[in-house]
Amino acid sequence: MTAIGRARAHTNIALIKYWGKRDKALFLPMNSSLSLTLDAFYTDTQVIFDEALTEDQFVLNGQNQTDSEVIKISQFLDLFRRAFKETRRAQVLSYNFVPTAAGLASSASAFAALAMAVNQALGLGLDRETLSTYARRGSGSSTRSLFGGFVEWDMGTTSENSVAQPVDDADWDVGMIVIAINTSKKTVSSRIGMDHTVSTSPFYEAWKESAKHDLVAIKEAILARDFQTVGQITEHNGMKMHATTLSANPPFTYFEPETLRVQNLVRQIREVTGLSAYMTMDAGPNVKVLCRASEMERLVAELAKDFPNDKIITSLPGQAAYCLTEEEWRESERRFYDD
Amino acid sequence: MTAIGRARAHTNIALIKYWGKRDKALFLPMNSSLSLTLDAFYTDTQVIFDEALTEDQFVLNGQNQTDSEVIKISQFLDLFRRAFKETRRAQVLSYNFVPTAAGLASSASAFAALAMAVNQALGLGLDRETLSTYARRGSGSSTRSLFGGFVEWDMGTTSENSVAQPVDDADWDVGMIVIAINTSKKTVSSRIGMDHTVSTSPFYEAWKESAKHDLVAIKEAILARDFQTVGQITEHNGMKMHATTLSANPPFTYFEPETLRVQNLVRQIREVTGLSAYMTMDAGPNVKVLCRASEMERLVAELAKDFPNDKIITSLPGQAAYCLTEEEWRESERRFYDD
Repeated sequence: MTAIGRARAHTNIALIKYWGKRDKALFLPMNSSLSLTLDAFYTDTQVIFDEALTEDQFVLNGQNQTDSEVIKISQFLDLFRRAFKETRRAQVLSYNFVPTAAGLASSASAFAALAMAVNQALGLGLDRETLSTYARRGSGSSTRSLFGGFVEWDMGTTSENSVAQPVDDADWDVGMIVIAINTSKKTVSSRIGMDHTVSTSPFYEAWKESAKHDLVAIKEAILARDFQTVGQITEHNGMKMHATTLSANPPFTYFEPETLRVQNLVRQIREVTGLSAYMTMDAGPNVKVLCRASEMERLVAELAKDFPNDKIITSLPGQAAYCLTEEEWRESERRFYDD
Repeated sequence: MTAIGRARAHTNIALIKYWGKRDKALFLPMNSSLSLTLDAFYTDTQVIFDEALTEDQFVLNGQNQTDSEVIKISQFLDLFRRAFKETRRAQVLSYNFVPTAAGLASSASAFAALAMAVNQALGLGLDRETLSTYARRGSGSSTRSLFGGFVEWDMGTTSENSVAQPVDDADWDVGMIVIAINTSKKTVSSRIGMDHTVSTSPFYEAWKESAKHDLVAIKEAILARDFQTVGQITEHNGMKMHATTLSANPPFTYFEPETLRVQNLVRQIREVTGLSAYMTMDAGPNVKVLCRASEMERLVAELAKDFPNDKIITSLPGQAAYCLTEEEWRESERRFYDD
């Protein structure tokens, strides 16, 4: 017997960063975080539980994945199998709709889409909040990809209540530009980077404390649709996260020479044109710019004067994760191979 | 009647940074700091107090200085005039022996040399510790340039006991390389940068606290001649200082694209060759490398493979500030114009 589920989840960019775990096994974070889900980047996933399968399979973008990738998926599926006495192995097919140039990690959308698909396949009837606690254990940032718009990941007190919650649908003048910086350098993974920071930075306690205040303040500003304040808190919080890496021992940074050039470029455009543009960065060299959707085109034109146009990707806010019909899934597969 | 004094003081590079004042008028620092005095960079100064002068004069490197520069010198001389009931105006002649390419601020050596010269001219008989409290009020980092080798600036509790003290003559296998990064960009002055950081960084308290621990640890390591530990603390402390600027609101940085390229280069040389090389930076884009004097030549050769040789300046530890004879002064003047 087989059971099938299909779902789509969008990626998200944190405005208040998740940076450090208080429980590594359960992916319980040191602080609550807040993100904007992005329409332009998503993962479509189909899962088929099948009695006939002797082991889990994972095919990403049409490619069979290596054992270590399959193990991650298996361990994730085990969370559901254990909780719901499910014994069947599964085949997971996924397509990442993330422009290669964007250089964005797709783990956020990946585990959210898979959790949603499993929920449908097994008829579990779990709501998005509960599904977010499963997604969390695949990848911390995935927690927030169950919802659309501005989303809070409440750090919670237990594994059950460390969940995502929608804050605002972001259906106002908000957008994001990803400036993808080419890099040949191997970066420190976010997992290793945050663990090293937590265990060696003398600024880490102050980071946690200030992130708590930032979260309260940004939620107020979001609800008041006060874009400037949202942007200022976003830029300050993101740079504080990167300040913690520079204060680790030994110190390290995700900044690359090109990162600083782009940061200067964004500051200059902001000063000269008066356009709203606030930067944030994650565990890599790319610069993400929170902006007004209505000003996105002008900002891109300014950026493109000094940066390759095909490395500048824009996005409007994205919606919550949702199930796909068989027809939508087929169409999505076709689109993947056509692109 | 005239009174004449002449002195030389060397610049210094902080290994435990001074970054923030608790009293802006008196230049009382938020934390104690520690530096290495450098032989290669110094200021020679002659001061002549003369009844015939109607105003102070300041000639630097053969150039009459602007009013705003003269005012700084006048205010500095006033500290002595007030304390010792001196009424004469003075002529100050200074030569900075700092390679232009080094891009180093000369204020550290400048006020130390001037304090020493005034002491001689007026026959005050003040010791170096006391003179360091005067130098401090010209420029914070100048406090440490009264002594040679490794020098501590004790934050003290009052203006009188916020003084420099020698820690170790550094007469062992220690050196420093300054990698001068060309910049067209106007940097934020250290005064403005530290004030902004103190008033807006949520990490500032943690910085102060950790600098206190770093100071204790580095003094132990210096006395044990444990170079690796001295280097690791130096690099960690310097990067923490720069982490505070990134955590200010709005965030800012003294790093430039070329800074990151050079940092990567130094890390790479360290890993590949096993040579000891620990970085530190001040309120500008230049990278300073604490190293073994005995390995300095090999390090420069490695750096020069990927960086203009004429922008790499080496120095051994420097000695304490001292008075110059008239003959030494004349010789120094000649050398300045010959170079």
